[in-house]
Amino acid sequence: MSTVRQKANSRISHLRSLLCVGLDSDDQKIPEIFKKTGSPVLEFNRAIIRATSNSAVAYKINTAFYEARGIPGIQDMERTLADIPRACITIADAKRADIGNTSKKYAEAFFEHWSFDALTVAPYMGFDSLEPFFAYEDKLVFVLCLTSNEGSKDFEEQLLGDGRPLYETVLEKVNQWNRGGNAGIVVGATKNGQLEAIRAAAPDLFFLIPGVGAQGGSLDEAVRYGADSAKESALVNVSRSLIFPQGAFASIDAFEQAVSVESEKLHLAMKRAM
Amino acid sequence: MSTVRQKANSRISHLRSLLCVGLDSDDQKIPEIFKKTGSPVLEFNRAIIRATSNSAVAYKINTAFYEARGIPGIQDMERTLADIPRACITIADAKRADIGNTSKKYAEAFFEHWSFDALTVAPYMGFDSLEPFFAYEDKLVFVLCLTSNEGSKDFEEQLLGDGRPLYETVLEKVNQWNRGGNAGIVVGATKNGQLEAIRAAAPDLFFLIPGVGAQGGSLDEAVRYGADSAKESALVNVSRSLIFPQGAFASIDAFEQAVSVESEKLHLAMKRAM
Repeated sequence: MSTVRQKANSRISHLRSLLCVGLDSDDQKIPEIFKKTGSPVLEFNRAIIRATSNSAVAYKINTAFYEARGIPGIQDMERTLADIPRACITIADAKRADIGNTSKKYAEAFFEHWSFDALTVAPYMGFDSLEPFFAYEDKLVFVLCLTSNEGSKDFEEQLLGDGRPLYETVLEKVNQWNRGGNAGIVVGATKNGQLEAIRAAAPDLFFLIPGVGAQGGSLDEAVRYGADSAKESALVNVSRSLIFPQGAFASIDAFEQAVSVESEKLHLAMKRAM
Repeated sequence: MSTVRQKANSRISHLRSLLCVGLDSDDQKIPEIFKKTGSPVLEFNRAIIRATSNSAVAYKINTAFYEARGIPGIQDMERTLADIPRACITIADAKRADIGNTSKKYAEAFFEHWSFDALTVAPYMGFDSLEPFFAYEDKLVFVLCLTSNEGSKDFEEQLLGDGRPLYETVLEKVNQWNRGGNAGIVVGATKNGQLEAIRAAAPDLFFLIPGVGAQGGSLDEAVRYGADSAKESALVNVSRSLIFPQGAFASIDAFEQAVSVESEKLHLAMKRAM
């Protein structure tokens, strides 16, 4: 089992939490109060981290929101990474993959240059496009399996010749590719109808479950069906509904307080569901 | 038809070339002579651009090779972009895609912040993950369809319930999504057996055809079967076999000369095949 997976599971057991905080830090959505600081996105992320670090097992950085602003955005990503407590897992939600020599470079970028603990990758191009990521045995590699968006019907849920949907073939392959114990999958929380069956078919994979909150997935079911038999090996990601609380905030402290309350609510709900 | 597509086709007709130069500028592979300059990758790219700009329709920047070095790599990407002649098309080979609000940010990054003309995207998550890219009607969006790597067998070539491979369903959908005339597909040149049929099924899409050279695809067939009936709407990408010529080079001029000779050879072969 990979070092990162062990570390994640220790923290899951210790906190009785599966909370992954999604830093989808859209600079056009962050509260006004941060715009008075020199580094709005960075200070916003720092406030989120302070408010959630007692409940969070992991932080997921959605690279699109940082790349959208070019190098200044990527600088914010780097500074944010530096502020995430060492006890927590860092996930680059980057959905990369390409032919082997290119994937090797993406792996170098995220696992070496930026030292993320985990990365999301896209399966379309098959095994040799993912092998360079799996080669990092100490890390966690989450392969897209069944996502929470409408478009999952277009290809992921298309039935193959054997009558099973494409995502089940992806699942089966990732199971085979999990030799180093460092493989995981992304399954949307709006797909809870399928989540129980997916977990039954993949008892040994680590699950990253986005889609709770703004995307409408049920937290309870995500926790209950997503975790493995030891009530570990799953992270439930919450982004928008946690990091963008309703209302105007007179101070960063007030914002932090609102996020902290929501984070504790999520943590409590997870404890109950576990 | 998108402005970028028109521009690409004008240059294709004018030069009688489909050449796309792939700037897969691996800093560990670039000749020693560049290592004495202050910016090895940038000076290497500049030499490639000088050597190929009379034959190239487009330059394809493989983002992995720049991200691998973090911000200094991305700075090299930005400076390289600034040096590509305006007459040429710039393609970000980034293979991004995610849920809609995230893809919107990737589109902002590549089409607005970095002002690329075109972008490669991954289809697995379906239409709403690609719609934010297609919304840029003046650009070109290349969806992965059938790639040249071994792993294409894992999913792309899996047969669906109707007996057709997955990539054909992707092709059919991209045809439907091509309302703005800004859609294209990526088809590997090693798949020339299928290329003719794919072009017949998608007469109106723009084709990006990698895999010539190091990956073993035939240039002649890629040109003959990839272009549309007007002998336009296709780019044949060459990376490693063009930008890393064999041998040691005593000067940047000597390197440039070697690349120029290879580029002219490719151009001539394309003229003959067109």
